[in-house]
Amino acid sequence: MDSTAKSDAWRADRDHFLHPYTDFTTFQDSGSQVVSHGDAMYIVDEAGRSYLDGIAGLWCVNLGHGRSEIAQAMGDQAQQLGYFNTFGHSTNTPAALLARQLAERTPGDLNHVFFTTGGSTANDTAIRLAHYYFNRLGKPKKKKILARNGGYHGSTYFAAALTGIHGIHYGFDRIAEDIVHHLSAANCYRRPEGMDEAQFCDFLIDEARHRIEQLGADNIAAFIAEPVMGAGGVLVAPEGYHRRMAEVCQQNDILYIADEVVTGFGRLGHWFASEDRFGHVPDILITAKGLSSGYCPIGAAVFSERMYEVISKPQGPGGVLSHGFTYSGHPVSCAAALKSIELYEREDIFGKVRDTGPYLQQQLKRLSRHDVVGDIRGDHLMAGVELVSDRDAKRNFPPDLAAAEVVFGRARDYGVIVRPVGDTIILSPPLIISREQVDTLVDSLDQAIEDVSGQLMSRAAAS
Amino acid sequence: MDSTAKSDAWRADRDHFLHPYTDFTTFQDSGSQVVSHGDAMYIVDEAGRSYLDGIAGLWCVNLGHGRSEIAQAMGDQAQQLGYFNTFGHSTNTPAALLARQLAERTPGDLNHVFFTTGGSTANDTAIRLAHYYFNRLGKPKKKKILARNGGYHGSTYFAAALTGIHGIHYGFDRIAEDIVHHLSAANCYRRPEGMDEAQFCDFLIDEARHRIEQLGADNIAAFIAEPVMGAGGVLVAPEGYHRRMAEVCQQNDILYIADEVVTGFGRLGHWFASEDRFGHVPDILITAKGLSSGYCPIGAAVFSERMYEVISKPQGPGGVLSHGFTYSGHPVSCAAALKSIELYEREDIFGKVRDTGPYLQQQLKRLSRHDVVGDIRGDHLMAGVELVSDRDAKRNFPPDLAAAEVVFGRARDYGVIVRPVGDTIILSPPLIISREQVDTLVDSLDQAIEDVSGQLMSRAAAS
Repeated sequence: MDSTAKSDAWRADRDHFLHPYTDFTTFQDSGSQVVSHGDAMYIVDEAGRSYLDGIAGLWCVNLGHGRSEIAQAMGDQAQQLGYFNTFGHSTNTPAALLARQLAERTPGDLNHVFFTTGGSTANDTAIRLAHYYFNRLGKPKKKKILARNGGYHGSTYFAAALTGIHGIHYGFDRIAEDIVHHLSAANCYRRPEGMDEAQFCDFLIDEARHRIEQLGADNIAAFIAEPVMGAGGVLVAPEGYHRRMAEVCQQNDILYIADEVVTGFGRLGHWFASEDRFGHVPDILITAKGLSSGYCPIGAAVFSERMYEVISKPQGPGGVLSHGFTYSGHPVSCAAALKSIELYEREDIFGKVRDTGPYLQQQLKRLSRHDVVGDIRGDHLMAGVELVSDRDAKRNFPPDLAAAEVVFGRARDYGVIVRPVGDTIILSPPLIISREQVDTLVDSLDQAIEDVSGQLMSRAAAS
Repeated sequence: MDSTAKSDAWRADRDHFLHPYTDFTTFQDSGSQVVSHGDAMYIVDEAGRSYLDGIAGLWCVNLGHGRSEIAQAMGDQAQQLGYFNTFGHSTNTPAALLARQLAERTPGDLNHVFFTTGGSTANDTAIRLAHYYFNRLGKPKKKKILARNGGYHGSTYFAAALTGIHGIHYGFDRIAEDIVHHLSAANCYRRPEGMDEAQFCDFLIDEARHRIEQLGADNIAAFIAEPVMGAGGVLVAPEGYHRRMAEVCQQNDILYIADEVVTGFGRLGHWFASEDRFGHVPDILITAKGLSSGYCPIGAAVFSERMYEVISKPQGPGGVLSHGFTYSGHPVSCAAALKSIELYEREDIFGKVRDTGPYLQQQLKRLSRHDVVGDIRGDHLMAGVELVSDRDAKRNFPPDLAAAEVVFGRARDYGVIVRPVGDTIILSPPLIISREQVDTLVDSLDQAIEDVSGQLMSRAAAS
């Protein structure tokens, strides 16, 4: 289909679908690319063009597209029991079994699963229940939340308040500003001049300690952090950071909430990254995305035994835990997740990631040959390539050049989907990616950058 | 299965599934009833016991359980394209087509659909975008939200703040208390002594006008209301209330948000209740539940042309509408919704509701023979039966008697599922219910009330 012969779906989309994150300077004219099907590492648009999916849909299709077994499990479950609520003393088989499977795979004594419909609602739930926990514990003053600049935690009103990405709040209000406080991003690339990574880690830990002192540990409920920042640009914290932050939290009776929406389910080569990659056990662990490999909306907040003991204290006759969603523990979502877990194990997907992950990181280093590439970073199958107009000054391109967007467009011409976020190009392919497909991904990105960097540099110089 | 031989799923559930709305005084001992499958009007637990589902799962399985065509559509879509994001300039076929189908069925110029994962996230989205709308319009002071006591709007931190149900906040904090203000419930049963319904309507409208004056229309963004209050006890507003509230909103440049999560998709005999039942067109319409008949998590906030014009004003280069969820426009959720819409039409489900709905309301009147029944109310296939220990004084039972819970348990013994909320028993069956099944539902409830009312009355007298 050429650009003049737009499809019926294209028109319906332009006229009626209010998209997340739309750029309305171009939307009315260009509309959306209609993705019509997917097969393993590839998505195909309605014109029949095929693309290597370098972002797993949006960090989530970890098992790749078109998995018959997941589709079958969902269809079967929808036929058997499409829905019944899980409020109070009612449950369904897949939700019950999934709760146990999650508890078995999350680290330490994270044994109690609250299901939601995605990452945003899981983070939102974590905060509501952290507050509830301290209320029930007789510490009603412990309410403040420490989050981080560059952190992304979702799009409910409260999850957005936790989010610390510069520029994302344009036009939007922030709520709970008296509650949410942001610490510095653990951004090694843009750490203060003259510090090595170990010193930067000390700096971040000191900042946290100082902020806690300033706000008062008695007023702070929780610290929330992604093991590796995702939408903030794939920022990998300095060695030891998470373990030391967990110690600081423990010393101050502050709950550590690990937002593993992106890092969970194998992206860093393990079920979860908190313990296996970063050596600590959080008090609440958040998961979504890879949990169902994106095939059905689901998220979960997993709580420690210590928290559960308090949360499950009877309120007295008639009193209930008044929180939850119609679709908490949705049987079809849970069936998709159970089948995903089975496939992750049967195909040793995480073992593969421990091979292809380091290979991707190593291959990406080739991109440093471009002057416009300021930083290449990541961990296993999660990578960020930050573009700069001046490498020494680490200066990004002027926003109106939309440099990463330009690279994204060019890479798409080569049949590869990457994700532009600010001036960073993000890669987060399905975990089934082969070494050959890593080569294709990196080669295409390399070529795309080569094609556009001259033009970007001269436009930057002229602006 | 008897109570001593608990299943593996039962055990997994008790040990690892942290349920919404659990009563922890009994949970460890009794655990959950494991629902294993469903067929049309019935659900079946793992012991093989079958129950007439008087609540459609949770107001949502409008087309009934075990619908092969929906299951097939979901499985097929998961196979074809299980997920790709709909951020910015990307879409998928079912999401695009569903957006148009929704726009065609929502009243007036409600033409622009923002997809979410359920009712909570749709209400949360409505508020975030209402604020965004007024910010972009240059009216940043317009931020306050008028909600209602007894209203239920969900369980994100902000949706819970909108919720005005007495007692639901036990142990929980409320956020945004400077933003959210609650008006009186439109509760005709408990209206002030001596007022008739028309006078009560005047009273409610006057109260709203007065509150708006007090807070200042310039500070108020929106009014949010369910056409018929759901979890608040199925409260039907006085004749003319919604139309008059819509006029008050319009006069004060306040957006009317109709939360049609429960009332949408046929429960009151039409696609939506706002216009067809209550004669007004809101500025934002919220839908979920019946949208996919509960088979897959999805919700939507539908915006008027007037709002879209402002929301879609370009921000300038690089600027985007920074709101949305990974699973906004999930292809499988949208496929389930498209198939549901097809079935609603093909089987003339809403025509059936316009027959069985009034029949249910009429049959329920029989329950007034019990002294413990204080009020019977509702609209079409949405009904509430409020229990009282003293009819003249309209006094509810002491909370520790959990009167509605007792009736629920007894009705379950008779093979019928109803829903106890506070002292009200709620009915919201699948819309495919026959007149014969209405009879069964009402007969069983009648018998259950008869069985337990003597015991309840004497315990109330003794307490």
